[in-house]
Amino acid sequence: MEGITAEVAMYTVNNIWILIATVLVFIMHLGFATLEAGFVRKKNTVNILFKNCMILSIGLLTYYFVGFNLMYPGGESAGGFFGFAGFGLTLPEGDAGGIAYASGAYSYYSDFIFQAMFAATCCTIVSGAVAERIKLVPFLVFCLFFVSISYPITGMWKWGGGWLDAAGFYDFAGSTIVHAVGGFGALAAIILLGAREGKYTDKGIKPIPGHNMPLAAIGVFLLWFGWFGFNGGSVLSADAANVSLVFTTTALAAAGGAVGAFVVAYMMFKTHDLSMVLNGMLGGLVGITAGADQMGIGEAIMIGMIAGAIIPASVVFIDSVLKLDDPVGATSVHLVCGLWGTVAVGIFGNMASLSQVLIQLKGFFAIGMFTFAFAFGVIYILKVTMGIRVSEEEEMKGLDAAEHAMSAYQEPEKISDYSLAIE
Amino acid sequence: MEGITAEVAMYTVNNIWILIATVLVFIMHLGFATLEAGFVRKKNTVNILFKNCMILSIGLLTYYFVGFNLMYPGGESAGGFFGFAGFGLTLPEGDAGGIAYASGAYSYYSDFIFQAMFAATCCTIVSGAVAERIKLVPFLVFCLFFVSISYPITGMWKWGGGWLDAAGFYDFAGSTIVHAVGGFGALAAIILLGAREGKYTDKGIKPIPGHNMPLAAIGVFLLWFGWFGFNGGSVLSADAANVSLVFTTTALAAAGGAVGAFVVAYMMFKTHDLSMVLNGMLGGLVGITAGADQMGIGEAIMIGMIAGAIIPASVVFIDSVLKLDDPVGATSVHLVCGLWGTVAVGIFGNMASLSQVLIQLKGFFAIGMFTFAFAFGVIYILKVTMGIRVSEEEEMKGLDAAEHAMSAYQEPEKISDYSLAIE
Amino acid sequence: MEGITAEVAMYTVNNIWILIATVLVFIMHLGFATLEAGFVRKKNTVNILFKNCMILSIGLLTYYFVGFNLMYPGGESAGGFFGFAGFGLTLPEGDAGGIAYASGAYSYYSDFIFQAMFAATCCTIVSGAVAERIKLVPFLVFCLFFVSISYPITGMWKWGGGWLDAAGFYDFAGSTIVHAVGGFGALAAIILLGAREGKYTDKGIKPIPGHNMPLAAIGVFLLWFGWFGFNGGSVLSADAANVSLVFTTTALAAAGGAVGAFVVAYMMFKTHDLSMVLNGMLGGLVGITAGADQMGIGEAIMIGMIAGAIIPASVVFIDSVLKLDDPVGATSVHLVCGLWGTVAVGIFGNMASLSQVLIQLKGFFAIGMFTFAFAFGVIYILKVTMGIRVSEEEEMKGLDAAEHAMSAYQEPEKISDYSLAIE
Repeated sequence: MEGITAEVAMYTVNNIWILIATVLVFIMHLGFATLEAGFVRKKNTVNILFKNCMILSIGLLTYYFVGFNLMYPGGESAGGFFGFAGFGLTLPEGDAGGIAYASGAYSYYSDFIFQAMFAATCCTIVSGAVAERIKLVPFLVFCLFFVSISYPITGMWKWGGGWLDAAGFYDFAGSTIVHAVGGFGALAAIILLGAREGKYTDKGIKPIPGHNMPLAAIGVFLLWFGWFGFNGGSVLSADAANVSLVFTTTALAAAGGAVGAFVVAYMMFKTHDLSMVLNGMLGGLVGITAGADQMGIGEAIMIGMIAGAIIPASVVFIDSVLKLDDPVGATSVHLVCGLWGTVAVGIFGNMASLSQVLIQLKGFFAIGMFTFAFAFGVIYILKVTMGIRVSEEEEMKGLDAAEHAMSAYQEPEKISDYSLAIE
Repeated sequence: MEGITAEVAMYTVNNIWILIATVLVFIMHLGFATLEAGFVRKKNTVNILFKNCMILSIGLLTYYFVGFNLMYPGGESAGGFFGFAGFGLTLPEGDAGGIAYASGAYSYYSDFIFQAMFAATCCTIVSGAVAERIKLVPFLVFCLFFVSISYPITGMWKWGGGWLDAAGFYDFAGSTIVHAVGGFGALAAIILLGAREGKYTDKGIKPIPGHNMPLAAIGVFLLWFGWFGFNGGSVLSADAANVSLVFTTTALAAAGGAVGAFVVAYMMFKTHDLSMVLNGMLGGLVGITAGADQMGIGEAIMIGMIAGAIIPASVVFIDSVLKLDDPVGATSVHLVCGLWGTVAVGIFGNMASLSQVLIQLKGFFAIGMFTFAFAFGVIYILKVTMGIRVSEEEEMKGLDAAEHAMSAYQEPEKISDYSLAIE
Repeated sequence: MEGITAEVAMYTVNNIWILIATVLVFIMHLGFATLEAGFVRKKNTVNILFKNCMILSIGLLTYYFVGFNLMYPGGESAGGFFGFAGFGLTLPEGDAGGIAYASGAYSYYSDFIFQAMFAATCCTIVSGAVAERIKLVPFLVFCLFFVSISYPITGMWKWGGGWLDAAGFYDFAGSTIVHAVGGFGALAAIILLGAREGKYTDKGIKPIPGHNMPLAAIGVFLLWFGWFGFNGGSVLSADAANVSLVFTTTALAAAGGAVGAFVVAYMMFKTHDLSMVLNGMLGGLVGITAGADQMGIGEAIMIGMIAGAIIPASVVFIDSVLKLDDPVGATSVHLVCGLWGTVAVGIFGNMASLSQVLIQLKGFFAIGMFTFAFAFGVIYILKVTMGIRVSEEEEMKGLDAAEHAMSAYQEPEKISDYSLAIE
């Protein structure tokens, strides 16, 4: 270990933190999978798990093939709206290690794999909203285009140094760029897809409770766990002051979200609704994500509490007034709280100003409109070609039987003879 | 990255390790939630999950408002028994980064968020013991006072530089300060609360098995996982020699705990009881926590094995002799093994001496008596004002129905008509 | 923090990464436990969880007593085939920290605990294959010998500087040394044990689906999560270029494995089989493990896709042609994909050459034959002495009832009187 310099040691610790943050973001995919599995009915559980396995895999592969170079095109973008640095990865030249990144803070592959873990997230958000009635293969085709083309293009507008970055739009770790993008995709999808059979009837709106609350709770805790990497890694270094501030704002916003949802849900429903508190935590996390490095702790708590308070109202509004069927509340958590978090950057903290609020709104809706139009277009084409919805009979039987020929929970056979051996 | 010094690089790696340890301790809250959910009956599952969401959130928020400054009051404590440095957080002045901590080892916010994750743990321990019969809101009120006042005051006695620290009491990562504190709170609570309906009858003691062993196993593995951060982070730096020793003693004590519980449980029950082995692992972890940095590996194994061996005996003693109803065995794991671990610091390892045993006992019982009296007082007041126990009818129906109007596991509807669509 | 040098900072970051990787490998044991629990029938769930608790504990303890010093005997090995540096751990002398390792990169205890977490893995692999019919205590006796003697001896041949290392055999993180070793142990065990009752009948082969797909999915995601530590930690430092490359090849091979299995399983079964995709991800991970630091990203994707494509074919071949009953597909994932990954080092990447293919095959089969013979011998002796299989009646009742006198999922009592209180 001779000849080690302090710069090399610092580079190494920065880099290993980005990689550890990558691992944390990775496990958010399990968080989404179990959250969504818990919130759907038993008969659609395998389908949700299957989709989340494939989304993650498709997301990583397509981000390697095209996404990364669409999102970070270097100096080659057209007016800050679009750029492409070529297929696959190409190591920058010149560094002793062979793969040092321009900023010097972490390696090229660390940069890629951290960003790649983010990319698949936007489709995972859609996955929950369209659960229990979408056809598997068309959905995966949608994901392929959404994650490899739509997400990186709008991501480039800010994080790739595009026009929104130049305009002063701020989105630290992706309240808009990741979460609202997923939420707008979800919105387009559920409009085109329609509600689940039996959800909205002449006799009223049927609540369809999820089948497994422990799975849902596991999901939310894993998402919070991973969010320390999602936000903490977005510092893009292991800088002590910044990462520790981001950890603290992130955790206390989530805690605030739980309390906000607890209070408002009790006022609305006169009971203690676990799914609201779970989504309230997530709302707090989505809310703090845009400004996690710009807030004091008290401000982070405020942002989180308001986000949590929004959740029950938003869920009821989208379900009962808009009559949009979103089984897991993804539009409330990711789109509505994504909007709140994006705007909150202009209301609280270091960047608070009316002009910042306006640029935040501009960025949110610019990205939102592009994303909604892209998603609507792709899903519309899929609807008129492949079809996007399973048959009514398949929906009644459940997607596990229809698409996967299996059951999530195999019960013992009830036959009292020798075949008991294979119950 | 010019001008980086070795001191800055070292500061950064120390700090990032404290933050990673924070993430690991965070996930222990999911571990407690799933462990306790697995060990209760199906009808009380939502309630346990709900409580653990709120405890974590209340714990983080109140530790921010008052707890941190009660536990680490700086130079202002009254005789080493009580001090308070004011509400909320105030960054120390003078450091370039703005938030460097006095010791130089990690940032102010890292210090706060690591300690804050510990704080909620003590209530989570109580949560398991009072499961299946406590009213939700009074329990949360208790937690609010317990975590924001009682836990930080006794914590200050040692970790905040108080009178037990001056007296030579040693508790590396909290066998007494965290685990036994939770255990004493649990003891006070179950004495005042009484046993579950149908538990102790004229015909004998009814065992009430938990409803989901995979959930319980997930909980214990996540707790062990998080314990690497709980103990490893308590080194308060990334020092290679110390953290690696603590990792090794921690892991081998847990392994020893499993073996100790395996053997003794088989001798006692003539079968292989999974819940005893799971609690044996936890017992080993609690046992090593007070002296994880003071033991050789062989000594750590001994401490863990004895802790594991204690578990089946203690569970039976508390259940059958004392007739205290503790659905998850929290008093055995956290109180009894907390005592064992605290005393073991004086029996094994670098600090072994009779005088150390005595000071360990003194510290354990001083903290224990304060905690028990505080918890008993608060819960007693709640009992005579709000009431702390659900009605017999609510207990029979289950707390999920009574307090949350929902079911943890929604079964398909059994109607064979169109409504099958929403099964 | 005065007097800190860049060397010390670098040593600290390298060491803390090895410890964090240790934590990640630790949680793979929960991954195996839940994967296997999900893939067996309800009535054998407690048994699987129990075995995995004990395997981990026995593995850690015996690796401390003998395994580590068999695997890393220092200069004392007999012809590169066998060496032993004595019982227990002995800190090397001379370093300021007291426990610095010879290479200077991380501490002695870090070296031990990282390797110890690997060791138990090989038995966990066997555990899945023998599920639902093996007797508990003989299985644990087998594990004790397998993990403490067989695994370290063959591990020494390569990682301990033995004859295969001298011969040029390459196995970066253990496609052969860990995974195929587990697979060969599994193969020996299921040959001697025979199939589950009712599996192979005159009327054909009965598929026996697992009872809980969410548990299985949780398992696979946790294994992938942990694999970042398994492969990333095997760099044996926090070197930015190497660890980030290994993270990227590992993740994209897993993604490729999912896609490979998706396509081939659909071609074979005309449905979307979740268990195949889950095992395909694992196959991709096993496949990349031998050469994770030697591949480009495109090559890693190829290796993963081929591994994933192998899975459905191999599972069907072993089940239907060889008629070997492996409830979780462990032989396909760990033995067959372990072979593929080992050979792939000679086909793709920096080391590709025909001679390397040959030495890879030589190493694989040398280690495989030793392991198979050892495992077959130990299990054969157990079979003729203690017996290794539960009775047919116990198998029908399930191992949870037979060996543990408990049920994984306690259902509410169906009695409609007062005893409802303890449902």
